[in-house]
Amino acid sequence: MKPIALVGSTGSIGVSTLDVVRAHRERFSVDLLVAGTQWRALAEQIREFRPAIAGLSDPVGYRELKRELKVSTVDARWEETALVCGEDEIASAIKESQAKVVVAAVVGMAGLSSVLAALESHKDVALANKESLVAGGALVLEKARACGAHLVPVDSEHSAIFQVLQGVHREELASVILTASGGPFRTTPLSEFAAITPQQALKHPKWSMGAKISIDSATMMNKALEVIEARWLFDLDPEKIEVVVHPQSIVHSMVRLCDGTVLAQLSVPDMKGPIGYALTYPGPRLGGVMRSLDLPEVRELTFEPVDQRRFPAVSRARECLRGAKGAPVVLNAANEVAVEAFLGGRIPFLQIMSVVDEALGQYGGESYETLDELKGICSTVTEWARHRTQSVRE
Amino acid sequence: MKPIALVGSTGSIGVSTLDVVRAHRERFSVDLLVAGTQWRALAEQIREFRPAIAGLSDPVGYRELKRELKVSTVDARWEETALVCGEDEIASAIKESQAKVVVAAVVGMAGLSSVLAALESHKDVALANKESLVAGGALVLEKARACGAHLVPVDSEHSAIFQVLQGVHREELASVILTASGGPFRTTPLSEFAAITPQQALKHPKWSMGAKISIDSATMMNKALEVIEARWLFDLDPEKIEVVVHPQSIVHSMVRLCDGTVLAQLSVPDMKGPIGYALTYPGPRLGGVMRSLDLPEVRELTFEPVDQRRFPAVSRARECLRGAKGAPVVLNAANEVAVEAFLGGRIPFLQIMSVVDEALGQYGGESYETLDELKGICSTVTEWARHRTQSVRE
Repeated sequence: MKPIALVGSTGSIGVSTLDVVRAHRERFSVDLLVAGTQWRALAEQIREFRPAIAGLSDPVGYRELKRELKVSTVDARWEETALVCGEDEIASAIKESQAKVVVAAVVGMAGLSSVLAALESHKDVALANKESLVAGGALVLEKARACGAHLVPVDSEHSAIFQVLQGVHREELASVILTASGGPFRTTPLSEFAAITPQQALKHPKWSMGAKISIDSATMMNKALEVIEARWLFDLDPEKIEVVVHPQSIVHSMVRLCDGTVLAQLSVPDMKGPIGYALTYPGPRLGGVMRSLDLPEVRELTFEPVDQRRFPAVSRARECLRGAKGAPVVLNAANEVAVEAFLGGRIPFLQIMSVVDEALGQYGGESYETLDELKGICSTVTEWARHRTQSVRE
Repeated sequence: MKPIALVGSTGSIGVSTLDVVRAHRERFSVDLLVAGTQWRALAEQIREFRPAIAGLSDPVGYRELKRELKVSTVDARWEETALVCGEDEIASAIKESQAKVVVAAVVGMAGLSSVLAALESHKDVALANKESLVAGGALVLEKARACGAHLVPVDSEHSAIFQVLQGVHREELASVILTASGGPFRTTPLSEFAAITPQQALKHPKWSMGAKISIDSATMMNKALEVIEARWLFDLDPEKIEVVVHPQSIVHSMVRLCDGTVLAQLSVPDMKGPIGYALTYPGPRLGGVMRSLDLPEVRELTFEPVDQRRFPAVSRARECLRGAKGAPVVLNAANEVAVEAFLGGRIPFLQIMSVVDEALGQYGGESYETLDELKGICSTVTEWARHRTQSVRE
């Protein structure tokens, strides 16, 4: 029985993680559940999985959560769960948890502190939070090494690379090849990009995902963040991180080896695969996590280069990696605010990239050494971007 | 410097092996070269690679070889190479060789004795000879285990599977998926099969191979033999060996894992890849063995089921594996003679499978325990098939 902690339990990855746990109750127990604001969903999860501790970031929701759990259940066993609230208490709960692995599934920069808390307490991390690597990659990897903890990616792309690298000598690795679905606008002419609505952008052709990630997929900023993530996870120079568009989303990524071999990981698109892999690593995989892949049914797998003109984000990521240490932080923070503004109807689609580029123009030369300095860059850029996206409406 | 022995040096795999060695002279020395009848080609190889020993199976060619080497070279250093002739002397030479790895690249059942000689002398075997596993799989695997030698497949399909299995826990393996190009007649209507000529059948769309293997590819008997080979190499039940048609020959094979993941090995079609891998296993791969794979250039990878009606060989192989121990021996021996007869213009294309099926009808129930008994079945079937293919012309 492997005890797990799940931070970000009510989001898309969190819910899928609990699906995996539910199907393998003999293998996992849930020691800690943490959510942001969705107290009602968390209450249900607490009733079902009965963790030792549960946390909610939001103090308002926290009061509701306590009320909900006290009044609405005839079964008193939920009271075994201790409740905590706010970032500090949650970080302490992560550190004190008996979990062997912490699933870090919070979206955005908010996820960084829980990742660091998990690593500091020598727990393995199943990492679904891109931003902690994008912004704090150097810090996170250093911490993982110092604490001797495994950092196993849950992104389907990085999980694919991580999986195929298991049988590879490090010196054989020539490059990694991230696959990209190309998002919902892969074939949309650039001339129509200005009129793209949030509703259109939220409709991803292959994956069912959260709103932030869906928009990132539509701009291919998702892939840009993954390039930065790969730089840290696999310790690679930016030119050794290739991106290829693969609309079927069956090949989740590949590695290119020195002899000319390419190794690939394929499956139906289902996050339960990478989640299950990360939960059991380095042990054997779980059985029957995903539907079996029928290749004659899929019939064809196609590959195209990235159109840099319509999707400039990927090359921007590479530029950031070659620039100042703070540049990826700026890219990420500006994008987070810009996506929020687009979803809120405050800026049009094409302005997402403009906001990012303007932010990079202003703050892209910044550097940092400590977590506080990093957070400082984040705050500055976030504030700037909030201001920038409040007024714009074109 | 890793000394290698190459048995079958003048054939397609042999020549490719020497290409790999030539490009990596700093890594390999050639200790032993063995050919069948092509003494002139062997003489050239001896002059270039200066092995300690060289052998020729054919006694007539052997006399020519000795004469050739004595008279035509002004450089006397070739005399450092000791020459041997015939199966027994060659087996002794393999056993006495200083080679760390023996490349077994003889086509047909004749390759079995050199594989066993290599394993008996505790040498790793880079196995390009299908038939030794098809007919003598149990014996070969038992010998490899008993002698603690690595048996590394050189067939592109089995090499692909072997490569991706390096990072996999044995209990994770659900099945292997052999890819098949479908050969030159993948889209030819069955009604035209009767008129297929050797010239048409020798023109493989993707691989440049020897004549026997090209015909086996045209009947998909090649894939049938590979199913049997996989059964032994990976210790799998026949139903766990899938076959899928993949005309581009870029995905060389795959494994299906218990969680729904499929791992695949891809490259341009070039036997130097699997050869290089087998020569260096379990060490790191060689650099730049094959041209780099450009997936947007390849554009699409397609997959189809095998048409059992036009290509019955694959299901026949599975039946053989479920039947008597001698059945695969019968299938292989009958096919060897039938292909010879087809190439010699003595039987039409569709009769290849008829001869195999008749042989299985007559001898498919045979079993064996020892190598001699196995050879007995081979001889009986070969003799029967020679007789059967001498008279037929329809």
